[in-house]
Amino acid sequence: MSLLVVGSVAYDALESPYGKVERTLGGAATYFSVCASFFTHVNLVAIVGEDFRDVDEAIFRKRKIDLEGLERAKGKCFFWAGKYSENLNERVTLATDLNVFAEFKPLLPEKYRNSKFVFLANIAPDLQRDVLRQVNGKPRLVAMDTMNYWIERTNAELRETLKHVDVLMINDAETRQLSSEHNLLRAANYIFKMGPSTLIVKRGEYGAMMVDANGVFCVPAFPLEEPHDPTGAGDSFAGGFMGYLASAGSKSDLYLRRAMVYGSVMGSFAVERFGLERLLSLRRSEIHARARHFAKLTQFKL
Amino acid sequence: MSLLVVGSVAYDALESPYGKVERTLGGAATYFSVCASFFTHVNLVAIVGEDFRDVDEAIFRKRKIDLEGLERAKGKCFFWAGKYSENLNERVTLATDLNVFAEFKPLLPEKYRNSKFVFLANIAPDLQRDVLRQVNGKPRLVAMDTMNYWIERTNAELRETLKHVDVLMINDAETRQLSSEHNLLRAANYIFKMGPSTLIVKRGEYGAMMVDANGVFCVPAFPLEEPHDPTGAGDSFAGGFMGYLASAGSKSDLYLRRAMVYGSVMGSFAVERFGLERLLSLRRSEIHARARHFAKLTQFKL
Repeated sequence: MSLLVVGSVAYDALESPYGKVERTLGGAATYFSVCASFFTHVNLVAIVGEDFRDVDEAIFRKRKIDLEGLERAKGKCFFWAGKYSENLNERVTLATDLNVFAEFKPLLPEKYRNSKFVFLANIAPDLQRDVLRQVNGKPRLVAMDTMNYWIERTNAELRETLKHVDVLMINDAETRQLSSEHNLLRAANYIFKMGPSTLIVKRGEYGAMMVDANGVFCVPAFPLEEPHDPTGAGDSFAGGFMGYLASAGSKSDLYLRRAMVYGSVMGSFAVERFGLERLLSLRRSEIHARARHFAKLTQFKL
Repeated sequence: MSLLVVGSVAYDALESPYGKVERTLGGAATYFSVCASFFTHVNLVAIVGEDFRDVDEAIFRKRKIDLEGLERAKGKCFFWAGKYSENLNERVTLATDLNVFAEFKPLLPEKYRNSKFVFLANIAPDLQRDVLRQVNGKPRLVAMDTMNYWIERTNAELRETLKHVDVLMINDAETRQLSSEHNLLRAANYIFKMGPSTLIVKRGEYGAMMVDANGVFCVPAFPLEEPHDPTGAGDSFAGGFMGYLASAGSKSDLYLRRAMVYGSVMGSFAVERFGLERLLSLRRSEIHARARHFAKLTQFKL
């Protein structure tokens, strides 16, 4: 089924103990689309500036990613610069230049309006709601991400948006901040009252946890000896999760669990190399092999 | 098969946001034995003082725990006092009075010397090695715990002991400290060169991870809305793990994975109430029900 994503397409400057790049294609919607495109067709809504390069556009065009919703504006692309600590578990943001992103007013092309699976990447909550208003009827599943900035600065807007969302996909610190609960089960129960019926907590090196009416489901992070760059791991997780669900066209527990695994698979590939590098060389057979590896990592017989 | 544990039997003063006790039976070997006794017969080697109460001795006697190796000495029992932060994720040690434990020289009764499964709880590495010297022949499996104190102060002794150990069971901070590696896979490879063939990393609210020649196996922590007291969680994990393995008499991958689950089950019960409280009211049927719940928490079909 059709999958819509709204979020950032950006240029990133990245530095980790494993290397440094001055300008590489990044942004939540980029990682999401590239990952989801292994599973299904993706409709992308984002904004880029005049410095957006043909070689980067080709990354989308070569994949099952529709660009009718990619707006071109005067000015420069969203730019983000960040540096990771030696263990990759802390990062400092060195620059956030919104550029054209500051004026982003998502507009859905007519053919995107029947999208049945919708992912609202981390943008202002009122823009996320604007997108949902443009979708015809009620989608099968709406998922969203957010961050501390929106939780603190636009809490009322965020709460309004959450009323229309099925799956909230955030990290553990955001979960605790949004709910004012340290315990993740109590946090989930608090968040369910705000609208979402499913909470997915991304826990970095500890994996991901899904809480819904069926209970709790946990997937560990794939053990890697040398992760190079955590940038985009959460959006890659979301891309694998939503891409798989949209391709299956179902949101039953069986499929949600598989989606958690495919999300973790894509997140694990994302961090293996710098920026998008590993995702761009990835083959479908490697995705399925790693999913089977996740089974080996977690399965037991009583 | 016979299971031997050497470690502390102590009195604890505990304080958490959920309550306070001035003096309750604790100690690594206590949590371990009580948990392991649900699965198999346990031979306990420990030392207590003159203040050891009959009512506490009865806790062992009522279970499948042999007390011939429980030495009585002049003086007082090992006493530990600790206080947990509001979220239970930090603790402050308020008192550590070794008392009779300072003179502890573990002596194995003749009938314990053929034990096939041995757990060396967190005591001085040279005492751990003394215990192994008293065991006849090579046990099927030797597992041990240790802590930052021994890693820092008696590193050479610890390394000597590790040469004779199959399974090292420590937390993530200890793993990183012992190996000087942040990444747990690289840490495991470092530790394998020191002797153990299996590393089990206890990660608190994130569960536990086992690394050996078969690869990696992860179990999440059981999600609890209101854990009351983390004291003894790691030793309860070890008790469930070793108790199950000794009862099965095997250390194949299938059994090691199950042991990881039963360890996690026992750790989850331990933290539900204060001190030993929940473990003392526990029934075997509850253990098996929770193990099935762990399956629900982690299993998926591709």
